[in-house]
Amino acid sequence: MRELRKDPVLNRWVIISSERAARPMNPFSVAPEKPYTYCPFCEGQEAATPPELYAVRRPGAQPNGPGWTLRVVPNKFPALSATSPALATDSLAAPGSENSQSDGLYQRIDGVGYHEVFIETPEHSQRLSSMDKTRAADLYHALKARLQVIKKDPAMACAQYFKNHGRESGASLAHSHSQLIAMPVVSRTLGEELAGAANHRIKTGGCVYCRILRMEGDSGERLITAREGLAALAPYASRFPYETMIMPMRHSSGFEDSSPELIEAFSSLLVDLLAALADMFDNPPYNLVLHTAPFAPGHEEAYHWHMEIIPVMARAAGFEWGSGFHINSVPPEIAAARLRKAMGNE
Amino acid sequence: MRELRKDPVLNRWVIISSERAARPMNPFSVAPEKPYTYCPFCEGQEAATPPELYAVRRPGAQPNGPGWTLRVVPNKFPALSATSPALATDSLAAPGSENSQSDGLYQRIDGVGYHEVFIETPEHSQRLSSMDKTRAADLYHALKARLQVIKKDPAMACAQYFKNHGRESGASLAHSHSQLIAMPVVSRTLGEELAGAANHRIKTGGCVYCRILRMEGDSGERLITAREGLAALAPYASRFPYETMIMPMRHSSGFEDSSPELIEAFSSLLVDLLAALADMFDNPPYNLVLHTAPFAPGHEEAYHWHMEIIPVMARAAGFEWGSGFHINSVPPEIAAARLRKAMGNE
Repeated sequence: MRELRKDPVLNRWVIISSERAARPMNPFSVAPEKPYTYCPFCEGQEAATPPELYAVRRPGAQPNGPGWTLRVVPNKFPALSATSPALATDSLAAPGSENSQSDGLYQRIDGVGYHEVFIETPEHSQRLSSMDKTRAADLYHALKARLQVIKKDPAMACAQYFKNHGRESGASLAHSHSQLIAMPVVSRTLGEELAGAANHRIKTGGCVYCRILRMEGDSGERLITAREGLAALAPYASRFPYETMIMPMRHSSGFEDSSPELIEAFSSLLVDLLAALADMFDNPPYNLVLHTAPFAPGHEEAYHWHMEIIPVMARAAGFEWGSGFHINSVPPEIAAARLRKAMGNE
Repeated sequence: MRELRKDPVLNRWVIISSERAARPMNPFSVAPEKPYTYCPFCEGQEAATPPELYAVRRPGAQPNGPGWTLRVVPNKFPALSATSPALATDSLAAPGSENSQSDGLYQRIDGVGYHEVFIETPEHSQRLSSMDKTRAADLYHALKARLQVIKKDPAMACAQYFKNHGRESGASLAHSHSQLIAMPVVSRTLGEELAGAANHRIKTGGCVYCRILRMEGDSGERLITAREGLAALAPYASRFPYETMIMPMRHSSGFEDSSPELIEAFSSLLVDLLAALADMFDNPPYNLVLHTAPFAPGHEEAYHWHMEIIPVMARAAGFEWGSGFHINSVPPEIAAARLRKAMGNE
């Protein structure tokens, strides 16, 4: 197979070229943990992080001490950080406002925002793919809670939740964690998705993601599983081998509006998909990426939240950076069939 | 410094967060070559590649035999390949036409195109950053020649030239080479640049890249060097540490329209910049990415070709894949000052 496929929402083509799979390649694998001397995310090291914003603890355990199973803390090296008087009064723009320079060509705004770390487990070598599902659900209950807090800040436009598993995926610390960055502007990808979804709604009156769900449910060839109100599928224009998307089957624009039951079902499905990938590819590095509506109202009907799982099988190279297109050597129909099998859904 | 900067052409913000540079990091370095047993790009292995499309050879040396200093060959594992009767008559679209499926949601076209490899040297361990400048110019004379041939194919919309140096940059073979992929659709990045440039032209009557050149020439803080009709600068909204852009100072939309003299000056400047980076960071992996006008006429006045040099200092992670934004820990003003110093242009 050698064809170009267009993403149904974005103006992005993907080259599906299964012949490229014949190239000599060494798949990545996250190496077993070496003995370590110090990790700021381990139980007992709570003083190594800024004070916690949220935690799941044993009854009676004190904040910022041991006895927890999940902690959310500000990133010690934040890409963006909360508004401060020093920032608000310096020569740059006021938080949340776009202040063009006088020439009108270059724009910049203060780097205000939130950058939080979800420490998913007190155990250094525990992985999300083999985590107890109650604890995995704790993680996504916490994400919902943090999104609900942050979206009240009128200076924030949207938030990007992501997880990097393994050095090849961009992780700088091995201890299982994920991150949330809230920003004063709508992200590029989200802006493009909103535009594509709005365009589809103007043309058809419906949600493009709901339509994808119906089509994929009908054809079945890219569907991995559908259970407890959620579908997992290999996107038609997958950029990466074994890329997977989880979506709620009932229309919903914001992850943080999910019921506790949906969050539990989501966490369970995510763990099962990650476990299947870990089995198939010997614990590959991966990224998780949440796509959820911006904080301002108005996108409830056109947008539909979804989570992407991106196994890291190859590095982005000059072609991807230059063109914005991707070359994928595994057709999503083949990826879906293998993932169905690994999950016992044949 | 912690701020968001918007690209002057694209709808893309970058988070410049120099505090992130304090994180523990191990910079990448391209390891010295291990002894190798076989390389399909070495002199004497010409039969290991498809027959050459272009070459620079010693007088009297036979095509597809030894005696060359540069070869251009089709990629043995092409992402896209030339039109063939088998492709033209199968169930997919005819080459060059966009054939929507009946539902109108999913679009695909045949994977027709060109995927060529520029083998830059017969010597296995020669690097572009220390190449004789005459031979570096041979490479870009060859690129011009190949672009001029390919753009005559009416099925092709644009071409992406790129180079991956080092495994961390996506290179699968160590022997110095670069690649050209010609496509039947305009790439996403090029489409967005054309839209941004057209928008600027509508508003101001001028070329946005020429304006950037004037502004950067006036301020000087992000200019690395300007010589022989070319400028090298650190872009205002650089996505990556030490990202560099080379542009012709005289407006020109297509790289393939460059005079032989400009190509020689370009090659010399590129080698000097790569040598400076190799000195500063112990031979870092990098990508080269050419941005040149699409093949169809109509963009001569608004578009302006440029080459990007992207050192690979960190891996793209979930945040970048999810948001389409980037986090850069080195402000371009600092990158430019260091590159100026390394090039002796203080």
